[in-house]
Amino acid sequence: MKLPDKEKEFLQWYTTVVEYAEIVDKRSPVKGANVIMPYGYSIWESIVAKLDSELKITGHKNAYFPLFIPEDYLQREAEHFEGFIPEVAWVTHAGDKPLERRLALRPTSETIMYDMFHLWIRSHSDLPFKINQFCNIIRFDTKDTKPLLRDREFLWSEGHTCHATAEEAEEQVRESMKIYEAVYKLSCMSFLILRRPKHDTFAGAVYSIAYDSPLPDGRTLQIGTTHNLGQGFSKAFDITFQDKDKTNKHVYQTCYGLSTRLIAAIVGLHGDNQGLIIPPFIAPIQIIIIPIYKKENAEHVLGESEKILKILTKAGLKVELDKREGYTPGWKFNEWEVRGVPIRLELGPRDIENDQVVMVRRDTGEKIIIPIKDAASKAKKILKEIQIFLQKKADNLLANSISYPKTYQELIEIQSTKRGFSRANWCGDIACADKVKNDTGADIRGTREDIKEKPDGKCLICGTEAKSVVYISSAY
Amino acid sequence: MKLPDKEKEFLQWYTTVVEYAEIVDKRSPVKGANVIMPYGYSIWESIVAKLDSELKITGHKNAYFPLFIPEDYLQREAEHFEGFIPEVAWVTHAGDKPLERRLALRPTSETIMYDMFHLWIRSHSDLPFKINQFCNIIRFDTKDTKPLLRDREFLWSEGHTCHATAEEAEEQVRESMKIYEAVYKLSCMSFLILRRPKHDTFAGAVYSIAYDSPLPDGRTLQIGTTHNLGQGFSKAFDITFQDKDKTNKHVYQTCYGLSTRLIAAIVGLHGDNQGLIIPPFIAPIQIIIIPIYKKENAEHVLGESEKILKILTKAGLKVELDKREGYTPGWKFNEWEVRGVPIRLELGPRDIENDQVVMVRRDTGEKIIIPIKDAASKAKKILKEIQIFLQKKADNLLANSISYPKTYQELIEIQSTKRGFSRANWCGDIACADKVKNDTGADIRGTREDIKEKPDGKCLICGTEAKSVVYISSAY
Repeated sequence: MKLPDKEKEFLQWYTTVVEYAEIVDKRSPVKGANVIMPYGYSIWESIVAKLDSELKITGHKNAYFPLFIPEDYLQREAEHFEGFIPEVAWVTHAGDKPLERRLALRPTSETIMYDMFHLWIRSHSDLPFKINQFCNIIRFDTKDTKPLLRDREFLWSEGHTCHATAEEAEEQVRESMKIYEAVYKLSCMSFLILRRPKHDTFAGAVYSIAYDSPLPDGRTLQIGTTHNLGQGFSKAFDITFQDKDKTNKHVYQTCYGLSTRLIAAIVGLHGDNQGLIIPPFIAPIQIIIIPIYKKENAEHVLGESEKILKILTKAGLKVELDKREGYTPGWKFNEWEVRGVPIRLELGPRDIENDQVVMVRRDTGEKIIIPIKDAASKAKKILKEIQIFLQKKADNLLANSISYPKTYQELIEIQSTKRGFSRANWCGDIACADKVKNDTGADIRGTREDIKEKPDGKCLICGTEAKSVVYISSAY
Repeated sequence: MKLPDKEKEFLQWYTTVVEYAEIVDKRSPVKGANVIMPYGYSIWESIVAKLDSELKITGHKNAYFPLFIPEDYLQREAEHFEGFIPEVAWVTHAGDKPLERRLALRPTSETIMYDMFHLWIRSHSDLPFKINQFCNIIRFDTKDTKPLLRDREFLWSEGHTCHATAEEAEEQVRESMKIYEAVYKLSCMSFLILRRPKHDTFAGAVYSIAYDSPLPDGRTLQIGTTHNLGQGFSKAFDITFQDKDKTNKHVYQTCYGLSTRLIAAIVGLHGDNQGLIIPPFIAPIQIIIIPIYKKENAEHVLGESEKILKILTKAGLKVELDKREGYTPGWKFNEWEVRGVPIRLELGPRDIENDQVVMVRRDTGEKIIIPIKDAASKAKKILKEIQIFLQKKADNLLANSISYPKTYQELIEIQSTKRGFSRANWCGDIACADKVKNDTGADIRGTREDIKEKPDGKCLICGTEAKSVVYISSAY
């Protein structure tokens, strides 16, 4: 089972490893609607658990809204409709009967939710109002689908909030960013936080902030977004509240989403030529115990393995024991390496004699011999070290992916070869964005939201006065 | 806010209370696809948490399969296709383009899953194989939709397993029953466990076992089913494994489902004319603290309320403090009564002086004065008592709902008036089932699975020899 080289042919490596590691199965019958296999789904469960906890702590309540959205709902916010209509899947028949009006499958839930918010929100005491929904989303993209990177059906969390003032909505955008960053930290993500240029803002929003992660092939991946919706939707859907001064006002809104695409980023950022490396704090299995025995000592070694499984599980670690028969230890080593389990614990008869276990780090390959009595505490220490190692590696990749072209020619060269993020002064004219897109396939992804940057020269593309410093990349 | 009388007009009571208690909002734009509101959804989250834990303990792994099912997949198992085709919603277009082949939205996932199982299962060491999926399900029923009782979109858990032998599949049916019964126990359900007659078996299954709960209006509600699929699907989808004897064999399968309909049963079984009564072990809020104060002592009472909130939360109880301004205590009492919170904790200045709290049981209305220092331990005791009380009440309802008609005329009378379950001898002829349906609207729901019953007379309907003892009821 040899994987393609990650550095040289990233996309081949990626599409191969997600299948070998049993993250997804692409052989489902509908293109772009893949099966998320149990191991892949368990990573999503780890993400959901963290997200759900952070959302609840900050006062979000989960709810469930219909998959079906009538066409006229989508149309109520004009920009929103324009943005999503090309990739909407339409239900036209039920049984053998045509429907009276065709129904869209949710490409996102603003319109169906906000029609309800209109009914639910009455007074300032109902605000802030924070709803989250975990659900499936349908976007029948006509472009090339790629498992988890670009799917026609995917799973996500979508947060939707209403506020009394613009300031509170602004604060909510910051809160949502903290929530997502907590999930990204668990996943050892590195990213730029970019405010999208106006022409790439979410359909119907005032502004959009996105998290863009670099991938090893130089492309970047949007792993989450948060939008300040202002009053656009609240006016379209008439969501008002009676304020303390007894007057009726339209609410200010925000929304944000984080999807199964994050799994793609975890795979792409941390994996190597042996397979995945799952960050320990989000790994469904943190330690895999592999007993090494012959027929004559099988019972003894398996018995001791079970004991260690119990000790480590009791210590709060996520551990599994691979006692499948008919597979060699070497075959098992390889399989769990591909699946990216952070620590492999080997136990053979000689280890038992010496009251020790062998732990092998998935990230560095380092072998560590540990007295059995220290196994739990040492494992926890190693898991933390792996988490730190992966974070550093990801941070380095990000740092190395940013280029600072001095001329437009240099920008074209970089974005046609190693790619990554190119930092550039921009005049703000969409014609310049189109020119870059045309010359390199890359987009102006936006301005840094975490730090303020002022242009230090003319627009790199047209040479007129620059208004902002932007990051340009070719996105998945 | 007065509710319809539950005994006299159950369905009006039900549809009113699910809205008043903010379980669902029926004002969504697509008939039968309702919004599950945060409070309703939190009940589902309690159910899912228990179900997920029981499923994982018994070796099930969660996964996610596509919503879209090509038509020819549905057709592969003929009976299955016949069973579901009348209520399938069809996607025919994406964006402005017609699809090459129309796609069904999953009415259940056997066909899309089993096509994958065919690829995944190779050897006896892959068995038993147990998958669970939490997802949305689409059944575009043309009959009257009723929130949570009969929805066009609902949420569920569907378990699907494969086994080497018929015996193991049989054992799996028993395991699934134990899992569901653990969830029902938490929900204080009462039910008959019935093996459906052949003509009402799940499309494609060898036999189906269903849990039918009585509702106060005499109708019954199927709250979960488990099916022994035999080899019907494994032959249709060619799911084989190499057995220990090196020969290839088709697997034996089971599947089972439990949906958001259980919330309807919880509402219907336990509520009263004041609203819901949620069983404590599944209640999203077990105790609601209502501070009683005037302007001059507001700070003091709210401060003490916060202290009690902390004490009870620390003790592991699910507690909320209702400190909303602008609502009287009486208004709040009523609202939380409608929502069915098991214990209301009242705290006023005099209680604080006396180092006491007042707890009011939602089920019996009993007021209990408790020293603050005993609040947590006493609350736990009361919650257990409420759980037992609701279980007993539900068990009584079930016992009272079973009738023993001696003649067909009596059966017709009962099933046209008080309804419930009627126990009867049956010859096994579908003509008799049709006759009952025609005369009363009731169905032969099946034979008891938990106990063995032998006919003690002729078929109640046609007078020929009886083959089984069945239960007849009018189902939602």
